[in-house]
Amino acid sequence: MAIILITGGARSGKSRRAEMRTRSFPGQPVYVATAEALDAEMEARIATHRARRGADWIEREVPLDLVPALVATDGGGARLVDCLTLWLSNLMHAERNWESEVTELAAALPRLKSPVVFVTNEVGLGIVPDNALARRYRDAAGTMNQVIAAASNEVEFVVAGLPMKLK
Amino acid sequence: MAIILITGGARSGKSRRAEMRTRSFPGQPVYVATAEALDAEMEARIATHRARRGADWIEREVPLDLVPALVATDGGGARLVDCLTLWLSNLMHAERNWESEVTELAAALPRLKSPVVFVTNEVGLGIVPDNALARRYRDAAGTMNQVIAAASNEVEFVVAGLPMKLK
Amino acid sequence: MAIILITGGARSGKSRRAEMRTRSFPGQPVYVATAEALDAEMEARIATHRARRGADWIEREVPLDLVPALVATDGGGARLVDCLTLWLSNLMHAERNWESEVTELAAALPRLKSPVVFVTNEVGLGIVPDNALARRYRDAAGTMNQVIAAASNEVEFVVAGLPMKLK
Repeated sequence: MAIILITGGARSGKSRRAEMRTRSFPGQPVYVATAEALDAEMEARIATHRARRGADWIEREVPLDLVPALVATDGGGARLVDCLTLWLSNLMHAERNWESEVTELAAALPRLKSPVVFVTNEVGLGIVPDNALARRYRDAAGTMNQVIAAASNEVEFVVAGLPMKLK
Repeated sequence: MAIILITGGARSGKSRRAEMRTRSFPGQPVYVATAEALDAEMEARIATHRARRGADWIEREVPLDLVPALVATDGGGARLVDCLTLWLSNLMHAERNWESEVTELAAALPRLKSPVVFVTNEVGLGIVPDNALARRYRDAAGTMNQVIAAASNEVEFVVAGLPMKLK
Repeated sequence: MAIILITGGARSGKSRRAEMRTRSFPGQPVYVATAEALDAEMEARIATHRARRGADWIEREVPLDLVPALVATDGGGARLVDCLTLWLSNLMHAERNWESEVTELAAALPRLKSPVVFVTNEVGLGIVPDNALARRYRDAAGTMNQVIAAASNEVEFVVAGLPMKLK
C-alpha cells in the first residue's frame, strides 16, 4: 500500500505537492486536517488551503485521534493528512504520550488498504531555540519524522515547490 | 534565456556559487545588490562579497525597483541579483505590495535577453517564530521562492557549499 | 583516506547514520565527543547516544583540541567526531580563534591515516536570529561546514533519517 511522506519548510509547497499525489490515486480523496480553527490566523490559512484544494474532497477534522480516523476512512480514496507536526503539537498540548502515539501510527500503516499521504515540517534546521519547550518540540518532530519516514514507501523533501526524492 | 535560482541557508555558499554561474556567461557580469549599507554589520558583509567577486563587475544598488533595473541592464552580460529575500524585506519595510511585485518580476523574466542568476534564502526550516511579523516574512519568502522557482529554468539548493539540482 | 561529513538538522538521524558509516571501516571505532556533560539535558542526550552506540567504542571527550585528538588516535579504527557545531560553540565560548582552528583542522585531514566521520548541523535555514551572538554563530557554522565539506571526500545531508549525497 502506498504510504507517502512529504516534508519541507514553511510555505515550501508541501501541501500542494501532497494534494497532487493524493489526487493521483483513484476514488474520492479524503482531507484529514489536524488543524483546528482556533484563531483568525489559522482560520485564514485553512480557508486558503480549502480554496486551492477544491470542493470534491471528503473533509475530516482530526486534531488527536489519527489512527482511528485512518481506520474509519479506509477502503475508499487516498487520505491526505495535513500535517503531522501540528498533530504532534496537539498531542503535546493535550499531554498525551506522543512517543507511543507515533509508534502506534507507524505500526498501523501496514494494515491500511487505501493510500495515505502525510505532510510534515522540517523544524530543526535553524539556530537552537532559547526555550526548553521549543527544543523539546523540535526534537520530538525530528524523531517523529524519522519514524514515519522509515514506515513510508516514498519520502520527498520539497524546497521552493520542487520535490527531491529521499526514498 | 537562462533564469537561474540559487537557494540555501545563511553562509551556505550560495553567493559564491551564483558568482560562478554568472561568470560562466559571456559579457561583463552585472552585480545587482539589493542590500543597502545601513549599518556596520551590513557594510562589512558587502565588503567581503565585493572583495571575493573582484573588480570587473558592473555594480548596481537596487533595494526596491528590481524589474526596471533588470530591463535597464538587459542586452549585456549576465546579472546576479543578491538577494531576493533582502529585496522582499525591503518591499515589506517600504509597505509595498510584495505579492504583486513578485508576480511582476516573474512575468518580466521571459522577456529578458541576458541571463539572470538569483540568490535567495530558505528561512522556513526552523521553529515557528514567536512574533507575527517574522511569521509573515517567512511565509512571504516561501511563497516568493516558489513563484520565482516556477519561472526559472534551473534551480539549485546549496548546502555546505555543494549544490543539489532541484530543476 | 576517507573523510566523511554528515550534515543535517536536529534529530534528523545524523548521528545514527554517522555511527553506521564509522562501523563500516575495519578496527575498533573511536567516538570523539565534543560535548561535555555540563547539565542534565546534555547528560541525558549523551546517555541516549551511548546506549544506542553500544559498548565496543573507544571514547574520548574532546571539547576543544580536536586536531591533537585525531592525531593521537590515528592508525587504528575510524573516528566519529560528534559534532563539529558543538566544537565550534566550545571554541567561541573559550574565545579561541575559531577561523584558524577550522583552517588547521581542514589542513590536518589529508595527513591522517585512519578514516574520520564528522557530524555537523545545518543551523542557517531558519529566520535570521534577533541577537548578534546567534547570528555570528550561525555564520561561523555555515563557514565551517563549507570548509570541512571542501576538505571531505564524501558529504551527506540527512533529512528524516534519509541521506542525500552532496559529494
